[in-house]
Amino acid sequence: MAKTDTKEKLIAASADIIHEKGFNNTGIKEILDACQVPKGSFYFYFKSKKDLGLAVIDYHGQRFAAITAKFLGDKNIPPLVRLENMFSMFVNKICENGFVRGCPIGNLCQEMSDLDQDFRLRLNKSLRGLSQGVAKVLEEAAGAGELAPDSDPEQLAGFIVNSWQGALLAMKVEKSRRPLDAFMNVVFNMVLKK
Amino acid sequence: MAKTDTKEKLIAASADIIHEKGFNNTGIKEILDACQVPKGSFYFYFKSKKDLGLAVIDYHGQRFAAITAKFLGDKNIPPLVRLENMFSMFVNKICENGFVRGCPIGNLCQEMSDLDQDFRLRLNKSLRGLSQGVAKVLEEAAGAGELAPDSDPEQLAGFIVNSWQGALLAMKVEKSRRPLDAFMNVVFNMVLKK
Repeated sequence: MAKTDTKEKLIAASADIIHEKGFNNTGIKEILDACQVPKGSFYFYFKSKKDLGLAVIDYHGQRFAAITAKFLGDKNIPPLVRLENMFSMFVNKICENGFVRGCPIGNLCQEMSDLDQDFRLRLNKSLRGLSQGVAKVLEEAAGAGELAPDSDPEQLAGFIVNSWQGALLAMKVEKSRRPLDAFMNVVFNMVLKK
Repeated sequence: MAKTDTKEKLIAASADIIHEKGFNNTGIKEILDACQVPKGSFYFYFKSKKDLGLAVIDYHGQRFAAITAKFLGDKNIPPLVRLENMFSMFVNKICENGFVRGCPIGNLCQEMSDLDQDFRLRLNKSLRGLSQGVAKVLEEAAGAGELAPDSDPEQLAGFIVNSWQGALLAMKVEKSRRPLDAFMNVVFNMVLKK
Protein backbone atom coordinates (compact mmCIF):
# COMPACT_ATOMS: atom_id res chain seq x y z
CA MET A 1 0.00 0.00 0.00
CA ALA A 2 1.31 3.48 -0.85
CA LYS A 3 2.22 5.75 2.07
CA THR A 4 -0.58 8.26 1.48
CA ASP A 5 -3.09 5.40 1.23
CA THR A 6 -2.07 4.05 4.64
CA LYS A 7 -2.26 7.48 6.21
CA GLU A 8 -5.68 8.16 4.70
CA LYS A 9 -6.89 4.74 5.71
CA LEU A 10 -5.82 5.41 9.31
CA ILE A 11 -7.60 8.77 9.32
CA ALA A 12 -10.84 7.43 7.80
CA ALA A 13 -10.98 4.42 10.13
CA SER A 14 -10.24 6.59 13.19
CA ALA A 15 -12.85 9.13 12.12
CA ASP A 16 -15.41 6.33 12.08
CA ILE A 17 -14.47 4.76 15.42
CA ILE A 18 -14.10 8.11 17.20
CA HIS A 19 -17.48 9.21 15.80
CA GLU A 20 -19.10 6.26 17.54
CA LYS A 21 -17.10 6.03 20.77
CA GLY A 22 -15.55 9.45 21.38
CA PHE A 23 -11.87 10.41 21.23
CA ASN A 24 -10.76 9.55 24.77
CA ASN A 25 -12.67 6.29 24.66
CA THR A 26 -10.89 5.10 21.49
CA GLY A 27 -7.56 3.31 21.80
CA ILE A 28 -4.77 3.32 19.20
CA LYS A 29 -4.80 -0.50 19.25
CA GLU A 30 -8.43 -0.51 18.11
CA ILE A 31 -7.56 1.71 15.17
CA LEU A 32 -4.52 -0.39 14.22
CA ASP A 33 -6.61 -3.56 14.38
CA ALA A 34 -9.34 -2.03 12.19
CA CYS A 35 -6.74 -0.99 9.56
CA GLN A 36 -4.40 -3.96 10.00
CA VAL A 37 -1.50 -1.52 10.32
CA PRO A 38 1.42 -2.25 12.72
CA LYS A 39 2.08 0.12 15.63
CA GLY A 40 5.45 1.32 14.30
CA SER A 41 3.78 2.30 11.07
CA PHE A 42 1.24 4.42 12.97
CA TYR A 43 4.04 6.47 14.55
CA PHE A 44 5.58 6.97 11.14
CA TYR A 45 2.49 8.94 10.12
CA PHE A 46 1.40 10.51 13.42
CA LYS A 47 3.44 11.79 16.34
CA SER A 48 0.68 10.82 18.76
CA LYS A 49 -2.99 9.96 19.13
CA LYS A 50 -3.62 13.69 19.51
CA ASP A 51 -1.91 14.34 16.17
CA LEU A 52 -4.26 11.81 14.57
CA GLY A 53 -7.27 13.41 16.32
CA LEU A 54 -6.43 16.80 14.80
CA ALA A 55 -6.14 15.17 11.35
CA VAL A 56 -9.58 13.60 11.90
CA ILE A 57 -11.06 17.06 12.56
CA ASP A 58 -9.60 18.34 9.26
CA TYR A 59 -10.93 15.26 7.47
CA HIS A 60 -14.48 15.95 8.66
CA GLY A 61 -14.08 19.67 7.97
CA GLN A 62 -13.18 18.95 4.34
CA ARG A 63 -16.09 16.53 3.94
CA PHE A 64 -18.56 19.08 5.29
CA ALA A 65 -17.09 21.87 3.17
CA ALA A 66 -17.75 19.73 0.07
CA ILE A 67 -21.34 18.97 1.16
CA THR A 68 -22.20 22.60 1.98
CA ALA A 69 -20.59 23.81 -1.27
CA LYS A 70 -22.68 21.31 -3.25
CA PHE A 71 -25.99 22.10 -1.55
CA LEU A 72 -25.64 25.80 -0.82
CA GLY A 73 -23.81 26.97 -3.95
CA ASP A 74 -26.41 26.17 -6.62
CA LYS A 75 -27.64 29.62 -7.66
CA ASN A 76 -30.44 28.11 -9.77
CA ILE A 77 -32.32 27.24 -6.58
CA PRO A 78 -33.72 29.93 -4.22
CA PRO A 79 -31.36 30.32 -1.20
CA LEU A 80 -33.74 29.18 1.55
CA VAL A 81 -34.77 26.16 -0.53
CA ARG A 82 -31.09 25.19 -0.86
CA LEU A 83 -30.70 25.39 2.90
CA GLU A 84 -33.85 23.36 3.51
CA ASN A 85 -32.72 20.75 0.95
CA MET A 86 -29.41 20.34 2.76
CA PHE A 87 -30.96 19.84 6.19
CA SER A 88 -33.62 17.50 4.72
CA MET A 89 -30.81 15.40 3.27
CA PHE A 90 -29.13 15.25 6.70
CA VAL A 91 -32.45 14.29 8.34
CA ASN A 92 -32.98 11.48 5.82
CA LYS A 93 -29.45 10.14 6.33
CA ILE A 94 -29.90 10.10 10.10
CA CYS A 95 -33.23 8.28 9.83
CA GLU A 96 -31.68 5.70 7.48
CA ASN A 97 -28.81 5.18 9.91
CA GLY A 98 -31.07 4.58 12.91
CA PHE A 99 -30.60 7.80 14.92
CA VAL A 100 -27.01 7.25 15.97
CA ARG A 101 -23.79 9.19 16.38
CA GLY A 102 -24.79 12.76 15.46
CA CYS A 103 -22.31 15.30 14.11
CA PRO A 104 -18.66 14.19 14.37
CA ILE A 105 -17.50 17.80 14.78
CA GLY A 106 -20.19 18.64 17.35
CA ASN A 107 -19.40 15.52 19.38
CA LEU A 108 -15.73 16.44 19.56
CA CYS A 109 -16.59 20.07 20.45
CA GLN A 110 -18.52 18.73 23.40
CA GLU A 111 -15.89 16.23 24.47
CA MET A 112 -12.61 18.04 23.84
CA SER A 113 -13.10 21.82 24.06
CA ASP A 114 -12.27 22.04 27.76
CA LEU A 115 -9.61 19.34 27.69
CA ASP A 116 -7.22 20.40 24.93
CA GLN A 117 -6.67 23.87 23.53
CA ASP A 118 -5.32 22.63 20.15
CA PHE A 119 -8.45 20.53 19.64
CA ARG A 120 -10.62 23.45 20.68
CA LEU A 121 -9.11 25.88 18.18
CA ARG A 122 -9.26 23.37 15.33
CA LEU A 123 -12.87 22.43 16.18
CA ASN A 124 -13.90 26.06 16.48
CA LYS A 125 -12.60 26.69 12.97
CA SER A 126 -14.57 23.70 11.66
CA LEU A 127 -17.82 24.70 13.37
CA ARG A 128 -17.42 28.28 12.13
CA GLY A 129 -16.88 26.91 8.62
CA LEU A 130 -20.33 25.30 8.81
CA SER A 131 -22.05 28.46 10.00
CA GLN A 132 -20.21 30.68 7.49
CA GLY A 133 -21.64 28.54 4.66
CA VAL A 134 -25.12 28.99 6.11
CA ALA A 135 -24.55 32.75 6.69
CA LYS A 136 -23.64 33.22 3.03
CA VAL A 137 -26.88 31.67 1.84
CA LEU A 138 -28.89 33.70 4.38
CA GLU A 139 -27.23 36.89 3.11
CA GLU A 140 -28.40 35.95 -0.38
CA ALA A 141 -31.90 35.34 0.99
CA ALA A 142 -31.84 38.72 2.76
CA GLY A 143 -30.67 40.37 -0.47
CA ALA A 144 -33.55 38.75 -2.33
CA GLY A 145 -36.02 40.07 0.27
CA GLU A 146 -36.76 36.59 1.64
CA LEU A 147 -35.90 37.43 5.25
CA ALA A 148 -37.24 40.07 7.61
CA PRO A 149 -35.43 43.36 6.81
CA ASP A 150 -33.89 43.66 10.29
CA SER A 151 -32.53 40.11 10.43
CA ASP A 152 -28.86 39.41 11.09
CA PRO A 153 -27.72 36.59 8.73
CA GLU A 154 -24.55 35.82 10.68
CA GLN A 155 -26.34 35.55 14.03
CA LEU A 156 -29.16 33.53 12.47
CA ALA A 157 -26.68 31.17 10.81
CA GLY A 158 -24.89 30.54 14.11
CA PHE A 159 -28.22 29.95 15.83
CA ILE A 160 -29.35 27.49 13.14
CA VAL A 161 -26.12 25.47 13.13
CA ASN A 162 -26.09 25.34 16.94
CA SER A 163 -29.78 24.38 17.11
CA TRP A 164 -29.04 21.62 14.64
CA GLN A 165 -26.31 20.33 16.96
CA GLY A 166 -28.82 20.34 19.80
CA ALA A 167 -31.42 18.53 17.68
CA LEU A 168 -28.81 15.85 16.89
CA LEU A 169 -28.04 15.40 20.57
CA ALA A 170 -31.75 14.94 21.28
CA MET A 171 -32.36 12.48 18.41
CA LYS A 172 -29.44 10.43 19.71
CA VAL A 173 -30.89 10.09 23.20
CA GLU A 174 -34.54 9.78 22.03
CA LYS A 175 -33.74 7.53 19.08
CA SER A 176 -36.42 9.29 17.10
CA ARG A 177 -36.83 11.89 14.35
CA ARG A 178 -39.04 14.06 16.56
CA PRO A 179 -36.28 16.58 17.49
CA LEU A 180 -35.19 16.79 13.82
CA ASP A 181 -38.77 17.46 12.68
CA ALA A 182 -39.13 20.14 15.37
CA PHE A 183 -35.90 21.75 14.12
CA MET A 184 -37.10 21.75 10.49
CA ASN A 185 -40.51 23.13 11.40
CA VAL A 186 -39.41 25.92 13.77
CA VAL A 187 -36.40 27.01 11.68
CA PHE A 188 -38.07 26.99 8.27
CA ASN A 189 -41.62 27.98 9.24
CA MET A 190 -40.98 30.39 12.11
CA VAL A 191 -37.40 31.69 12.24
CA LEU A 192 -36.75 32.08 8.50
CA LYS A 193 -39.94 33.96 7.73
CA LYS A 194 -40.37 37.60 6.82
CA MET B 1 -18.96 10.13 58.33
CA ALA B 2 -22.48 8.68 58.12
CA LYS B 3 -23.18 6.20 55.32
CA THR B 4 -25.54 8.48 53.38
CA ASP B 5 -23.00 11.30 53.64
CA THR B 6 -20.27 9.19 52.03
CA LYS B 7 -22.58 8.07 49.27
CA GLU B 8 -23.72 11.62 48.57
CA LYS B 9 -20.15 12.88 48.68
CA LEU B 10 -19.14 10.26 46.10
CA ILE B 11 -22.04 11.24 43.83
CA ALA B 12 -21.42 15.00 44.08
CA ALA B 13 -17.66 14.65 43.50
CA SER B 14 -18.20 12.30 40.55
CA ALA B 15 -20.82 14.62 39.07
CA ASP B 16 -18.24 17.39 39.12
CA ILE B 17 -15.35 15.41 37.64
CA ILE B 18 -17.53 13.73 34.98
CA HIS B 19 -18.97 17.12 34.03
CA GLU B 20 -15.48 18.33 33.20
CA LYS B 21 -13.90 15.21 31.73
CA GLY B 22 -16.70 12.96 30.49
CA PHE B 23 -17.79 9.61 31.92
CA ASN B 24 -15.44 7.27 30.05
CA ASN B 25 -12.52 9.58 30.65
CA THR B 26 -13.01 9.57 34.45
CA GLY B 27 -11.44 6.82 36.51
CA ILE B 28 -12.77 5.46 39.80
CA LYS B 29 -9.36 6.14 41.38
CA GLU B 30 -9.71 9.85 40.61
CA ILE B 31 -13.09 9.94 42.35
CA LEU B 32 -11.80 8.03 45.39
CA ASP B 33 -8.82 10.38 45.66
CA ALA B 34 -11.06 13.45 45.43
CA CYS B 35 -13.31 12.10 48.22
CA GLN B 36 -10.58 10.34 50.25
CA VAL B 37 -12.73 7.24 50.30
CA PRO B 38 -11.13 3.73 50.08
CA LYS B 39 -11.92 1.50 47.12
CA GLY B 40 -13.74 -1.13 49.19
CA SER B 41 -16.02 1.56 50.50
CA PHE B 42 -16.92 2.62 46.94
CA TYR B 43 -18.13 -0.90 46.15
CA PHE B 44 -20.21 -0.91 49.30
CA TYR B 45 -22.29 1.93 47.81
CA PHE B 46 -22.11 1.20 44.07
CA LYS B 47 -22.01 -2.08 42.20
CA SER B 48 -19.90 -0.52 39.46
CA LYS B 49 -18.78 2.73 37.84
CA LYS B 50 -21.88 2.47 35.66
CA ASP B 51 -24.08 2.26 38.75
CA LEU B 52 -22.46 5.49 40.00
CA GLY B 53 -22.94 7.11 36.57
CA LEU B 54 -26.67 6.42 36.68
CA ALA B 55 -26.85 7.93 40.18
CA VAL B 56 -25.04 11.02 38.84
CA ILE B 57 -27.74 11.44 36.16
CA ASP B 58 -30.45 11.33 38.83
CA TYR B 59 -28.50 13.82 40.94
CA HIS B 60 -28.38 16.34 38.07
CA GLY B 61 -32.02 15.61 37.18
CA GLN B 62 -33.10 16.49 40.73
CA ARG B 63 -31.01 19.69 40.73
CA PHE B 64 -32.53 20.83 37.44
CA ALA B 65 -36.05 19.94 38.57
CA ALA B 66 -35.57 22.23 41.59
CA ILE B 67 -34.22 25.07 39.41
CA THR B 68 -37.01 24.84 36.84
CA ALA B 69 -39.66 24.60 39.57
CA LYS B 70 -38.28 27.74 41.22
CA PHE B 71 -38.03 29.80 38.03
CA LEU B 72 -40.98 28.51 36.04
CA GLY B 73 -43.54 28.01 38.81
CA ASP B 74 -43.97 31.60 40.03
CA LYS B 75 -47.44 32.52 38.78
CA ASN B 76 -46.97 36.18 39.78
CA ILE B 77 -44.63 36.64 36.79
CA PRO B 78 -45.87 36.37 33.16
CA PRO B 79 -44.94 32.92 31.75
CA LEU B 80 -42.53 34.06 29.01
CA VAL B 81 -40.77 36.40 31.45
CA ARG B 82 -40.23 33.45 33.82
CA LEU B 83 -38.68 31.47 30.99
CA GLU B 84 -36.45 34.34 29.94
CA ASN B 85 -35.37 34.91 33.56
CA MET B 86 -34.33 31.28 33.87
CA PHE B 87 -32.23 31.27 30.70
CA SER B 88 -30.71 34.68 31.62
CA MET B 89 -29.64 33.20 34.95
CA PHE B 90 -28.01 30.26 33.12
CA VAL B 91 -26.25 32.67 30.72
CA ASN B 92 -24.91 34.71 33.66
CA LYS B 93 -23.65 31.59 35.45
CA ILE B 94 -21.82 30.40 32.34
CA CYS B 95 -20.20 33.80 31.79
CA GLU B 96 -19.08 33.88 35.44
CA ASN B 97 -17.61 30.39 35.10
CA GLY B 98 -15.60 31.22 31.98
CA PHE B 99 -17.55 29.36 29.26
CA VAL B 100 -16.73 25.83 30.36
CA ARG B 101 -18.42 22.46 30.70
CA GLY B 102 -21.95 23.09 29.39
CA CYS B 103 -24.94 21.04 30.50
CA PRO B 104 -24.00 17.89 32.46
CA ILE B 105 -27.06 16.06 31.14
CA GLY B 106 -26.49 17.18 27.53
CA ASN B 107 -22.83 16.15 27.66
CA LEU B 108 -23.73 12.66 28.83
CA CYS B 109 -26.50 12.39 26.19
CA GLN B 110 -23.86 13.07 23.56
CA GLU B 111 -21.27 10.74 25.04
CA MET B 112 -23.31 7.79 26.27
CA SER B 113 -26.53 7.45 24.24
CA ASP B 114 -25.05 5.10 21.66
CA LEU B 115 -22.81 3.24 24.10
CA ASP B 116 -25.15 2.13 26.89
CA GLN B 117 -28.89 1.62 26.75
CA ASP B 118 -29.41 2.10 30.51
CA PHE B 119 -27.64 5.46 30.38
CA ARG B 120 -29.66 6.42 27.31
CA LEU B 121 -33.03 5.72 28.91
CA ARG B 122 -32.11 7.52 32.12
CA LEU B 123 -30.73 10.52 30.20
CA ASN B 124 -33.75 10.65 27.93
CA LYS B 125 -36.00 10.89 31.00
CA SER B 126 -33.86 13.73 32.38
CA LEU B 127 -33.81 15.71 29.12
CA ARG B 128 -37.57 15.24 28.75
CA GLY B 129 -38.01 16.52 32.29
CA LEU B 130 -36.34 19.78 31.25
CA SER B 131 -38.50 20.23 28.16
CA GLN B 132 -41.70 19.28 30.01
CA GLY B 133 -41.07 22.13 32.47
CA VAL B 134 -40.64 24.52 29.53
CA ALA B 135 -43.72 23.08 27.74
CA LYS B 136 -45.88 23.76 30.80
CA VAL B 137 -44.90 27.43 30.88
CA LEU B 138 -45.44 27.75 27.11
CA GLU B 139 -48.92 26.24 27.50
CA GLU B 140 -49.66 28.93 30.06
CA ALA B 141 -48.33 31.57 27.65
CA ALA B 142 -50.51 30.16 24.85
CA GLY B 143 -53.53 30.20 27.18
CA ALA B 144 -52.83 33.86 27.99
CA GLY B 145 -52.68 34.68 24.26
CA GLU B 146 -48.93 35.37 24.35
CA LEU B 147 -48.04 32.90 21.58
CA ALA B 148 -49.23 32.58 18.00
CA PRO B 149 -52.59 30.72 18.06
CA ASP B 150 -51.31 27.82 15.93
CA SER B 151 -48.15 27.20 17.98
CA ASP B 152 -47.40 23.80 19.48
CA PRO B 153 -46.05 24.34 23.04
CA GLU B 154 -44.61 20.82 23.32
CA GLN B 155 -42.73 21.02 20.02
CA LEU B 156 -41.53 24.56 20.78
CA ALA B 157 -40.34 23.48 24.24
CA GLY B 158 -38.32 20.60 22.77
CA PHE B 159 -36.86 22.91 20.15
CA ILE B 160 -35.87 25.50 22.77
CA VAL B 161 -34.24 23.01 25.14
CA ASN B 162 -32.35 21.37 22.25
CA SER B 163 -31.26 24.73 20.82
CA TRP B 164 -29.98 25.64 24.26
CA GLN B 165 -27.89 22.45 24.28
CA GLY B 166 -26.46 23.45 20.90
CA ALA B 167 -25.73 26.98 22.13
CA LEU B 168 -23.84 25.50 25.11
CA LEU B 169 -21.77 23.31 22.80
CA ALA B 170 -20.87 26.38 20.72
CA MET B 171 -19.98 28.59 23.73
CA LYS B 172 -17.71 25.81 24.95
CA VAL B 173 -15.73 25.65 21.71
CA GLU B 174 -15.82 29.43 21.07
CA LYS B 175 -15.23 30.42 24.70
CA SER B 176 -17.60 33.33 24.23
CA ARG B 177 -21.14 34.41 25.07
CA ARG B 178 -21.96 35.00 21.41
CA PRO B 179 -23.88 31.72 20.89
CA LEU B 180 -25.79 32.30 24.14
CA ASP B 181 -26.76 35.84 23.09
CA ALA B 182 -27.88 34.52 19.68
CA PHE B 183 -30.02 31.92 21.45
CA MET B 184 -31.64 34.53 23.71
CA ASN B 185 -32.29 36.91 20.83
CA VAL B 186 -33.71 34.41 18.32
CA VAL B 187 -35.78 32.47 20.86
CA PHE B 188 -37.28 35.41 22.73
CA ASN B 189 -37.53 37.96 19.90
CA MET B 190 -38.37 35.72 16.94
CA VAL B 191 -39.64 32.27 17.96
CA LEU B 192 -41.74 33.22 20.98
CA LYS B 193 -43.62 36.03 19.27
CA LYS B 194 -47.24 36.16 18.24
